[in-house]
Amino acid sequence: MAVTAQTRRPAHTPYSAPPTRQAPTVNKSPHWLDFLILSAVLLFFLELIVVVGRIAIDNRVEKAIQKHAADGLARADYAAASWGATVVDHSEPRYERDWPWLGWWSTWWNGVHHKAIHMLSPSFGEPGRCFPLKGRSGFVVVKLREPIVPEAITIEHVLDSVVDDRSDAPKDCRVTAWLQHDRYDGKKNEFVLAEFSYDVRKSNVQTCGVSGSVAKARDEAIVNMVELQFGSNNGSPVSTCIYRLRVHGHKPRS
Amino acid sequence: MAVTAQTRRPAHTPYSAPPTRQAPTVNKSPHWLDFLILSAVLLFFLELIVVVGRIAIDNRVEKAIQKHAADGLARADYAAASWGATVVDHSEPRYERDWPWLGWWSTWWNGVHHKAIHMLSPSFGEPGRCFPLKGRSGFVVVKLREPIVPEAITIEHVLDSVVDDRSDAPKDCRVTAWLQHDRYDGKKNEFVLAEFSYDVRKSNVQTCGVSGSVAKARDEAIVNMVELQFGSNNGSPVSTCIYRLRVHGHKPRS
Amino acid sequence: MAVTAQTRRPAHTPYSAPPTRQAPTVNKSPHWLDFLILSAVLLFFLELIVVVGRIAIDNRVEKAIQKHAADGLARADYAAASWGATVVDHSEPRYERDWPWLGWWSTWWNGVHHKAIHMLSPSFGEPGRCFPLKGRSGFVVVKLREPIVPEAITIEHVLDSVVDDRSDAPKDCRVTAWLQHDRYDGKKNEFVLAEFSYDVRKSNVQTCGVSGSVAKARDEAIVNMVELQFGSNNGSPVSTCIYRLRVHGHKPRS
Repeated sequence: MAVTAQTRRPAHTPYSAPPTRQAPTVNKSPHWLDFLILSAVLLFFLELIVVVGRIAIDNRVEKAIQKHAADGLARADYAAASWGATVVDHSEPRYERDWPWLGWWSTWWNGVHHKAIHMLSPSFGEPGRCFPLKGRSGFVVVKLREPIVPEAITIEHVLDSVVDDRSDAPKDCRVTAWLQHDRYDGKKNEFVLAEFSYDVRKSNVQTCGVSGSVAKARDEAIVNMVELQFGSNNGSPVSTCIYRLRVHGHKPRS
Repeated sequence: MAVTAQTRRPAHTPYSAPPTRQAPTVNKSPHWLDFLILSAVLLFFLELIVVVGRIAIDNRVEKAIQKHAADGLARADYAAASWGATVVDHSEPRYERDWPWLGWWSTWWNGVHHKAIHMLSPSFGEPGRCFPLKGRSGFVVVKLREPIVPEAITIEHVLDSVVDDRSDAPKDCRVTAWLQHDRYDGKKNEFVLAEFSYDVRKSNVQTCGVSGSVAKARDEAIVNMVELQFGSNNGSPVSTCIYRLRVHGHKPRS
Repeated sequence: MAVTAQTRRPAHTPYSAPPTRQAPTVNKSPHWLDFLILSAVLLFFLELIVVVGRIAIDNRVEKAIQKHAADGLARADYAAASWGATVVDHSEPRYERDWPWLGWWSTWWNGVHHKAIHMLSPSFGEPGRCFPLKGRSGFVVVKLREPIVPEAITIEHVLDSVVDDRSDAPKDCRVTAWLQHDRYDGKKNEFVLAEFSYDVRKSNVQTCGVSGSVAKARDEAIVNMVELQFGSNNGSPVSTCIYRLRVHGHKPRS
């Protein structure tokens, strides 16, 4: 802009004392004043942009970090272990090669492998902080913290950048849910919450809303048990790892 | 700007070959040259803004993430469990409904509930990763890592976005402190560090400086024991949860 | 800019009805129209900058947080405990003053102190979440998750802002590596991966590429054991703490 002012002014100058019959009318406002004003205005706007921009940046950064700090999604997770949810059943786990004892013992003792709880806790970007199940297909059953009206399911796998292979990610998933008051009740009124595919090429945290019929039922559809079944994985013939399973929703309003 | 140049130029053109007696003086600088220069200047400034802006953004983002990575506050916490602080006493805890055994056992064994240590560790935005105490009021006593000159207290509750209810947040708080060399010493020279209200509508991490008299005493006020008493909570009749308690300060300079 | 238009226009006006012999030609385009157009153009560009800037900010913030979420480096770490790496040997640890029993017991039981695993896990900005070794020099031996072609080593200490003293940071480091199939094999074909100094004045996470000869050997240099030796620390006569040790590389391509 400053350059503009300098560039254009000479173009006008010829006319400020031009060849007319009258006494030449000289332009009284000196060039440097114009230039100064222009520079000041320009600097003022640049300064304004910088200040406003800084506030805007801090604001958005603050929001993004707040969301990251809120367990990454800033959404209540009724399947969080720390909040009282538990894994109650699962298909055969993949026992470790070197030290399978703890896995055997825990599975025999209360029917649940000691690593199953990893599914209901943050994994902090650590590879291997997951629940590995045997084979390409399997299931896990989670008892939620309390009966809720389900709204969405989130499946999470490890980030691409920290592992060399994500063939153990689940692929075709089907989530069913039911309400169970007693430990020895069966799956009464089980219904499908959602059917979706976990796509490793997309974000590593994938949320899927409940199916239309469940969403329509609204506060009628109350559940406290959720089962994730995966029918295929991303290629590994040995095992499938679930890094995190979350269930979002709200308390029944009645 | 580009449009401006086009818009205004025609307004001048008539005067560049105007009706004077002399031979008409034609303006030699063609319009497209002016336009080009103007565009170049404009692009240069836009480019400059983009480059400078990018650096500014990265810089501020880097700082914000660094602060987040530094336990959220980038401030030494002498009540951090990992650094050697411990909970030595507390009012009656809220025992879990389903599996209270571990809580009973740990409380009986060394007088401290096994969940008390959650207060002195990060909660990673996980709901329930806290120390739940019975009722609306109570207290906890923390032995700091080492004797320090206290400067501020931080109380943290879970983020609004990941829970459906924060009525178990503490409200009116009173923090006292003293120096105790031996386990069987009493509270000698106990004094009030700070009195404040935790307000759930504000940020979930709230820091309160020590009271004026303590701040004035400076390096005279050396403490290694801190007691948090809360006289009321945010509404829950059942329990009050403390997610995190931090004590900031510095080593005595003598 | 708007001011510019107002400032300069009067300077031209005298020439729009200037002293010529002809009837004065009045400038038909009124000033306020020019002013409006100029303002509109200006607003449009400001708006454009705001929108583009917002997208740019969100984009960069998203990337930075993603990297932070990917264990801070977004790089596979074959020495991560969660992924199957273990500490197999180390020099004498610093036993705790108050409760050394667990340290003694674990060291006697399997030759490795119970805190050694902290080196292979994130420390979340928590002071003291590290493996403290006795004295100014020492070593640790890590068995990687699997044999890899090493590319770089990362040493991490606690952030400056959360502690009052970082004299226990390691300084001169030497990392060697070898391939060991059996537990009772010795260090066959041990070679130096990298020699470097951890500088506390720089970033707390410091990555050092492998030495030139190792890099040249490429897929010939396959290792599954890594030893970190530190010959000096940052000043503490008592102990040296290792917060994190990472080994980056890739699987042999053959």
